[in-house]
Amino acid sequence: MTTVTEHLEALLERIVPVDTVTVPLSEAHGLVLTQDVTSPVDLPRFANSAMDGYAVLSSEIAEASPESPQLVPVRGDIAAGDGQPHTHRPGTCWRILTGAPVPEGCDAVVRVEDTDGNPHEVLIKAAVEAGANVRPAGEDVRAGAVILRAGTRIGPTQLAVLAAAGVAQVSVTGPVRVAVLSSGDELVPVGEPVGPGQIHDSNGPMLAALVRAAGHFAVHAGHLPDDAKAVSKEIEHHQDYADLVITTGGVSKGGSYDAVKAALTGAGSMEFTEVSMQPGKPQGFGLLGKREVPVFTLPGNPVSVLVSFEVFVRPALAARAGMRYSPVTMPAVVAQGWSSPEGRQQYHRVRLSRDVSGSYAAEPVSGPGSHLVGGLAQADGLAVIPAEVTEVATGSQVLVLPLRPVAEIEADLQAARQDGDGDAADGAGRGQGAR
Amino acid sequence: MTTVTEHLEALLERIVPVDTVTVPLSEAHGLVLTQDVTSPVDLPRFANSAMDGYAVLSSEIAEASPESPQLVPVRGDIAAGDGQPHTHRPGTCWRILTGAPVPEGCDAVVRVEDTDGNPHEVLIKAAVEAGANVRPAGEDVRAGAVILRAGTRIGPTQLAVLAAAGVAQVSVTGPVRVAVLSSGDELVPVGEPVGPGQIHDSNGPMLAALVRAAGHFAVHAGHLPDDAKAVSKEIEHHQDYADLVITTGGVSKGGSYDAVKAALTGAGSMEFTEVSMQPGKPQGFGLLGKREVPVFTLPGNPVSVLVSFEVFVRPALAARAGMRYSPVTMPAVVAQGWSSPEGRQQYHRVRLSRDVSGSYAAEPVSGPGSHLVGGLAQADGLAVIPAEVTEVATGSQVLVLPLRPVAEIEADLQAARQDGDGDAADGAGRGQGAR
Repeated sequence: MTTVTEHLEALLERIVPVDTVTVPLSEAHGLVLTQDVTSPVDLPRFANSAMDGYAVLSSEIAEASPESPQLVPVRGDIAAGDGQPHTHRPGTCWRILTGAPVPEGCDAVVRVEDTDGNPHEVLIKAAVEAGANVRPAGEDVRAGAVILRAGTRIGPTQLAVLAAAGVAQVSVTGPVRVAVLSSGDELVPVGEPVGPGQIHDSNGPMLAALVRAAGHFAVHAGHLPDDAKAVSKEIEHHQDYADLVITTGGVSKGGSYDAVKAALTGAGSMEFTEVSMQPGKPQGFGLLGKREVPVFTLPGNPVSVLVSFEVFVRPALAARAGMRYSPVTMPAVVAQGWSSPEGRQQYHRVRLSRDVSGSYAAEPVSGPGSHLVGGLAQADGLAVIPAEVTEVATGSQVLVLPLRPVAEIEADLQAARQDGDGDAADGAGRGQGAR
Repeated sequence: MTTVTEHLEALLERIVPVDTVTVPLSEAHGLVLTQDVTSPVDLPRFANSAMDGYAVLSSEIAEASPESPQLVPVRGDIAAGDGQPHTHRPGTCWRILTGAPVPEGCDAVVRVEDTDGNPHEVLIKAAVEAGANVRPAGEDVRAGAVILRAGTRIGPTQLAVLAAAGVAQVSVTGPVRVAVLSSGDELVPVGEPVGPGQIHDSNGPMLAALVRAAGHFAVHAGHLPDDAKAVSKEIEHHQDYADLVITTGGVSKGGSYDAVKAALTGAGSMEFTEVSMQPGKPQGFGLLGKREVPVFTLPGNPVSVLVSFEVFVRPALAARAGMRYSPVTMPAVVAQGWSSPEGRQQYHRVRLSRDVSGSYAAEPVSGPGSHLVGGLAQADGLAVIPAEVTEVATGSQVLVLPLRPVAEIEADLQAARQDGDGDAADGAGRGQGAR
């Protein structure tokens, strides 16, 4: 069997970022720059006042002090946004507001607190050094300087500097559009009634949410019947527009009902692989069609789907989006041991609490069955158990892949502590977010 | 001056979650349940096969073994989704696929690997125990059991269990709709040309992105002029529909041009407070209008806006959304010291790297000016320096509020290590995401 690492490395080698597109700044949040961005302007764009006060030529008020204030005529007011070309006239000053352009010839601003605030003839009670309370043009960024490097993901503060510099559009690795397809004649979308032998599809909504929460676009979530020809046709349709396709189910040992495996065997570069992991052993991956769309065929059980997403699809999506990716794991102490199959890397659902030392304690939730979606919804993370380990001893340390935002887990743990019981052993008093 | 903690606690006391709404599951991602949810059905809904194989009554094949296989007539095939009411007839079996309903009277499934796979008369080569390879109805969740507690935030796995149970709509704390308003006559939206004395608005795009990244809805981002009457009118409009309003700028010491402060002084429960922090000292908060909409008036400089958002607005948004919230901080060692003002809690922009011991090392980026948006975009986090500290010594430990997803910071650090240089001192070889 292929190891998790081998399978992941092999598939990541075949994934290239989607094409570069140019988007307006309003659509750039979360996308990755494909080119260095230089500022077309100085930032600040022009010397402006850091304070409300009076713009002066500092040498002209060098003798001013609280004991001997200096009376200076005020030529007028300059507000932020004032577009007039004001200049200094010797022996005078301008009243100026924060952010307003400092007039040509003035070199400092006296804070309003160091004056009597008079709008016509101001008593200045303190000398200032040249440059005081002035933000010089280009102090922050020089015109022509690189403000963001290629490879940077555009978050809120990156949007701020791009906007400040007036960069109205950027070249980015395009948004990754993902089609999610659940297979099986037994599946009915939630909201529609189920008949005998049928079940509601849970993989579709879960995967669409995982894709969105990872910052990508789940543009279609639909259904594949248990019919290989129909599956082929449907997937051909999605590979025309999607940047990545994820299917679930229909990939068991190759029975005639395993329509996804039957449809895709031999298609493009599809390969079906047994990976030495639990759950998630039957993995399929390949590039399909002339757009070479990466297609993942995941197993059908919800826990297998989730684990496969975390281990293989999430890094692949990041690569497709041009992002660097590194899984974050949280070390935890095992509060109650369990066993793990020999020769397979196990991903065990755990709930986290705090142990007496303040470390995370991991407690298994739910049984071993990968169809147990009820327990899955109670898990904070997946404990990653190396293939060579068969007994996960109580008290041993494991690494946990979080399934919820760490801040959310922390907030629940804090709520638990405030309830007066953050004890690991019974989980009582934990936040309401966990049972 | 009010301390950060006092100000935060005072404002959080006045924030209540927005009204409960009932939404279809397709709109529930990220929202918080206001009621416990019970499953209307057993999960699994019916006893079904965990394997492809043959459904049998285990006692009838108790003697089967590889040496003495047992020939059993096959009554037919049962696929997943089969809605027929199949029953067991003594001495026979059914061929069955994973997920298909186990016929009435059968109590186990023999794996296809333990047979010759014949569709009409199968040679069974192994006995099975009662219950083998059968997922009993209700094994995962019993009808009527609580599957998710009130207070749970609905993420991907919670969507999965809700969908599996056929829960088509849920009661949640409604989505939080936020209006973002940048004030100042000098501001021009990005994409439009700036004249003399004007600048592009960077606070609006940054705040809208911060709101969205926190899982809320920035439903309006607009502009307020430097005119108190116009500001009042505009804010009255937004308080009719928004669940939270954030303004930036116009709140300096109360000059005639500080239109936001002038407009809102005395309105609703608005209070303007000096908070002992740097940056972000001038804070305004109150509830306005008959909908008692929380309104934050933040300072105008981008760094002050960002810090105010992280420290006050983010927890308030979480409270409005019915979420538990606890800031996650990362401990880091100071790679290069800096000073901090006496009596004010400082939030200092830092870039993170790894030091030799593998801990985070925090290095200051950019200067002290809170208008320095260029440096802000290079920061990984904000080091939180308590009010009593005036010198942040090299080698001391600080807590850092991350400004980017921790996974993203980790990925950049890992990329830096792979470049062969993860050293803290010069930051060379760091990911391209930082310069």
